[in-house]
Amino acid sequence: MSSRVAYLGPAGTFTEQAVRQWDVGRAHEAWPAPTVPAAIAALREGDAEAAVVPFENSVEGSVPATLQALLEDARVRICEEILVEVQFDLLSRGSTTLGQVDVVATHPHAAAQTRDWLAQHLPRAELVQESSTARAAQAVAEGRYDAAIASPEAGAAYGLTPLARRIADRDGALTRFVLLRRDAPVPPSTGADRTTLVALIWQNRPGALLELLEQFAVRGIDLTRLESRPTGEGLGEYCFWIDADAHLSEARMSEALLGLRRTCRDVRFLGSYPRADGRVPAVPVHADEQAYREAREWLESL
Amino acid sequence: MSSRVAYLGPAGTFTEQAVRQWDVGRAHEAWPAPTVPAAIAALREGDAEAAVVPFENSVEGSVPATLQALLEDARVRICEEILVEVQFDLLSRGSTTLGQVDVVATHPHAAAQTRDWLAQHLPRAELVQESSTARAAQAVAEGRYDAAIASPEAGAAYGLTPLARRIADRDGALTRFVLLRRDAPVPPSTGADRTTLVALIWQNRPGALLELLEQFAVRGIDLTRLESRPTGEGLGEYCFWIDADAHLSEARMSEALLGLRRTCRDVRFLGSYPRADGRVPAVPVHADEQAYREAREWLESL
Amino acid sequence: MSSRVAYLGPAGTFTEQAVRQWDVGRAHEAWPAPTVPAAIAALREGDAEAAVVPFENSVEGSVPATLQALLEDARVRICEEILVEVQFDLLSRGSTTLGQVDVVATHPHAAAQTRDWLAQHLPRAELVQESSTARAAQAVAEGRYDAAIASPEAGAAYGLTPLARRIADRDGALTRFVLLRRDAPVPPSTGADRTTLVALIWQNRPGALLELLEQFAVRGIDLTRLESRPTGEGLGEYCFWIDADAHLSEARMSEALLGLRRTCRDVRFLGSYPRADGRVPAVPVHADEQAYREAREWLESL
Amino acid sequence: MSSRVAYLGPAGTFTEQAVRQWDVGRAHEAWPAPTVPAAIAALREGDAEAAVVPFENSVEGSVPATLQALLEDARVRICEEILVEVQFDLLSRGSTTLGQVDVVATHPHAAAQTRDWLAQHLPRAELVQESSTARAAQAVAEGRYDAAIASPEAGAAYGLTPLARRIADRDGALTRFVLLRRDAPVPPSTGADRTTLVALIWQNRPGALLELLEQFAVRGIDLTRLESRPTGEGLGEYCFWIDADAHLSEARMSEALLGLRRTCRDVRFLGSYPRADGRVPAVPVHADEQAYREAREWLESL
Repeated sequence: MSSRVAYLGPAGTFTEQAVRQWDVGRAHEAWPAPTVPAAIAALREGDAEAAVVPFENSVEGSVPATLQALLEDARVRICEEILVEVQFDLLSRGSTTLGQVDVVATHPHAAAQTRDWLAQHLPRAELVQESSTARAAQAVAEGRYDAAIASPEAGAAYGLTPLARRIADRDGALTRFVLLRRDAPVPPSTGADRTTLVALIWQNRPGALLELLEQFAVRGIDLTRLESRPTGEGLGEYCFWIDADAHLSEARMSEALLGLRRTCRDVRFLGSYPRADGRVPAVPVHADEQAYREAREWLESL
Repeated sequence: MSSRVAYLGPAGTFTEQAVRQWDVGRAHEAWPAPTVPAAIAALREGDAEAAVVPFENSVEGSVPATLQALLEDARVRICEEILVEVQFDLLSRGSTTLGQVDVVATHPHAAAQTRDWLAQHLPRAELVQESSTARAAQAVAEGRYDAAIASPEAGAAYGLTPLARRIADRDGALTRFVLLRRDAPVPPSTGADRTTLVALIWQNRPGALLELLEQFAVRGIDLTRLESRPTGEGLGEYCFWIDADAHLSEARMSEALLGLRRTCRDVRFLGSYPRADGRVPAVPVHADEQAYREAREWLESL
Repeated sequence: MSSRVAYLGPAGTFTEQAVRQWDVGRAHEAWPAPTVPAAIAALREGDAEAAVVPFENSVEGSVPATLQALLEDARVRICEEILVEVQFDLLSRGSTTLGQVDVVATHPHAAAQTRDWLAQHLPRAELVQESSTARAAQAVAEGRYDAAIASPEAGAAYGLTPLARRIADRDGALTRFVLLRRDAPVPPSTGADRTTLVALIWQNRPGALLELLEQFAVRGIDLTRLESRPTGEGLGEYCFWIDADAHLSEARMSEALLGLRRTCRDVRFLGSYPRADGRVPAVPVHADEQAYREAREWLESL
Repeated sequence: MSSRVAYLGPAGTFTEQAVRQWDVGRAHEAWPAPTVPAAIAALREGDAEAAVVPFENSVEGSVPATLQALLEDARVRICEEILVEVQFDLLSRGSTTLGQVDVVATHPHAAAQTRDWLAQHLPRAELVQESSTARAAQAVAEGRYDAAIASPEAGAAYGLTPLARRIADRDGALTRFVLLRRDAPVPPSTGADRTTLVALIWQNRPGALLELLEQFAVRGIDLTRLESRPTGEGLGEYCFWIDADAHLSEARMSEALLGLRRTCRDVRFLGSYPRADGRVPAVPVHADEQAYREAREWLESL
């Protein structure tokens, strides 16, 4: 097995920042994959031992390509998460001035996060979509556009100059990246963990979503993310992506998983792993490990 | 251990009918206890191997003395149930006519079930309470009252004559009796079982009763009886008596019990035993034994 | 209309205490009715303008005769409630000593509340049931029994001497009495009110009780009493007696009533009236009158 | 007010098909706006009386630009919906053969819906993103790419030839378009209507989403769409887009709206309008107009 880590490239993406943040002091080779599926294909073919891909963003929501790729390979699991603060600069080749910018390239997520700035400072510029902000920076370096909206790191990677710094409309935007492995064991519980799941409910059963939420609620598990996504089978057909504040090895979580498995059309376990922010959940006294153990002993005594 | 069966006497009560219905072809000695606590005391002291007592009645509800006695001895459990159809006659000594009846004795439950008949046929008679219908019949035989409302069996037992037959205002009233043992194992599942429980919820937690009901609902268990009873600790303090359509050995029931044990202030298991009517519950496909087994296998595969 | 108040007699009952507590300084004639139905019949026939009857007791639960009588006359409503602290003395004729007491008369509720005392001090005495504690006291005065368990007031009313005082096993037991009127308007809201209801759910609809409770929960209404009672139609057929912490004229309560009316098999409104303890409920900010008014204005603006 | 209808252009988009499908026999001028916000700006400035924009798609989910634009102008409402069946052709200039296709342009949604076909037939072609499938077709007509994935209509509009027809991986994909107006009244109920809402729940209140769903469930309203979208305020902060099967003028819907308004942090009403498929919802008997009317009459009688 290679010690390479595949990531959504090219060099200069926020994903590369995530790899560096994770990798400080470790000796991995980072390989920039052209797309999320390509990064995951590298896992499958043994060309990489891990893959780092963007998962969700506090402004635009989840990254569909990552969700799709996770669903397609049942042996791939989330083993870690990494949070990166997102900053955008307007980058150009050295001599360009703001008045000379007619065409700006970026990724649609970055365009959405800088919309107000653009409306104020470059109201007439044409906006061109590229598949990543780093690729937009690269294209500016190649002379194809006047300027790119990308990270300071992308500016550095492609030798561009910032025309304006920190142009995001909101401060403090975060992107969450996940580190994926294939056929890897679930990392042990740290006491501050998350479990990622996808549940497909029976559409024709009224109250099925209520039931799904109750499986967590009756066991005192908070959900930090609940996102509906179309299954592709028709308008109104959804699966639900869930992040729950507990680890597979905790009794309340394993019991909730049993409940989901019994009542949902399908459920996919995508990993239990430490929270990047280390926040320990407030477990109600009736749902902690001791409550489960004590209840189990009582049941056996009957 | 004695092979005696204690029952709520005297001879001629509906409880004796229950003992006979249960006992057909078996060689037990039936011992008429004066009260429900006395019947249970006989169990405790080894004077009886089983006790048969009334549990609830389709007109008057549960029998408080039985509920109280069950709560007081944690080693006593319900092992069987017996349904007896309740019929009432107006019974007197041979020569009495309806016009001569000034004082009628009976048990308050029987009075309630024959109220319309009495209002129509004996509007001026005085009604005297006795502790059982059989005791009322006995008192009539002793000459203390003019007539008793009691079962035909009680009439036969005390040599009384029916002045009027089947005088209950509603046909088809049933009384449910339970057979209790002490330190007995839970009888095996038959596929058509009931579990009797008492749960004490946390009064100061809003929604605690909703939560209790959801513990059953999320696991597809029907409740055939839910009765609130004061705990004696103050107005508004209740415990809940529950009959649930499943057996302790079924996964859905044992999981519900674990949930109750974790979330309730207290929970008492009073027995899993075959339903007298043999009705097999409709278990939803997501809650049957196979669904639990399959879910457990899936969880272990993770 | 008479200015008489009917109450559950005879003189000396706790109900008479309730009448006095309510009536201090008013000029009503109190009439002791022999039974709860007789007190209510006096309302119906115009022989009384109000009736005071026991409703529930913190040890024994509700009083079936009152619940039954309320169900039978749809024009009778609860207009006030009165709480009486229950105390029991052992009462006898002057010369009797404890050692001479062989037969004790009382009401079954009082027997239940003094059971431990009796077991300790009069373990061999025979216990005889009377229809009220006051009637037991009267019978002792007539020489029919050795002693009665009844209130100090009953002792005074019938010229008996206390052999032992305050013999209840638990201190602080309360009985709640209700004052009934016929065809009376609902008293205005005081801010600390109760509404009494009876709801009959559709037994064959799974989750019907959950739904009933949710009608209150989604509107932030606390239930201070929930009691299941058999409907008399068969084992497992219940109606639910509910006391809810809100007044008919409050938006959250009227909306809950609309919800019940639509979803239940039947619902009976038995009155909105001030709480005897004056406790003001904690109304969640999303369910108070202002929240309802503001929401209504918003809806009209659409 | 102009009689122009703005739509997401250019000519040849699926949105234009939606306009035509809606407009058959009417005499509107259709104006192709470059972006969704531009189409809505035309409404605001009086340059168009209506705007037609894509809302959701059975494969890719909702269209973020439309959701965003609706949130930003509180006076814009959905007045109609139009469903268009999505078909894709591979389009090129006349003489090109499949073997000559090195670069394919399309919109990311179309790329996602033809991925399997592309993997099989053009595994080595480079995929370029354009802002709409029609724009991709236009770019092919201008000679910038070898082929476009777009609708047959786009092929016709730009004089292209289909190299392959109906290349979508799944048949029957639908896109739902909405017709927006500004300051328009809610269209009257037809009996088969939908209401679109956005609700922002109190994140720090556990069970807030359960409560939101119960507001609909207790009133028998089915939700045909529930989609969480980040609010942009941080990871884990969502608003919920809801399509509910009822009209604002129906009692069950207006009561649910009142409930949401009281319990949610914010709620936005975006329109009640006829369902494009005309499907009449199965209203439970306890939630239809008659049940509400009857309950209201009963409440007034109290």
